Amino acid sequence: MPVYTYDVTMTCSGCSGAVTRVLSKLQGVEEFDVSLETQKVTVKSDSLSEQEILEKIQKTGKAAKVAA
Amino acid sequence: MPVYTYDVTMTCSGCSGAVTRVLSKLQGVEEFDVSLETQKVTVKSDSLSEQEILEKIQKTGKAAKVAA
Repeated sequence: MPVYTYDVTMTCSGCSGAVTRVLSKLQGVEEFDVSLETQKVTVKSDSLSEQEILEKIQKTGKAAKVAA
Repeated sequence: MPVYTYDVTMTCSGCSGAVTRVLSKLQGVEEFDVSLETQKVTVKSDSLSEQEILEKIQKTGKAAKVAA
């Protein structure tokens, strides 16, 4: 199953908590990890595309992009 | 025009910035204010209901409710 990685600007635990809350409610996400320390979010999903997940993360209002 | 007030948990400027970004992109919002200090968000809108705006704020992953 593919794992997608994103760079997401998060400055406090409230920020990472918000991204965590959104991903935990997102149908099709198998596993995910949100790291405030590395500013990275990884998401494992079979049914959602890299772009679809990115758009959901961006809905939080955080600056986010697919990691290089 | 009605002004709606919400209690939104925001712990840093990244949090309030995320809510600001979402509201600035939301069609139908005439004016809004996001206060990290008071944890209040006010939104002036004719075309959106109190509940519709609440749902948009909640999409950020922040704990939010209509203020008493």
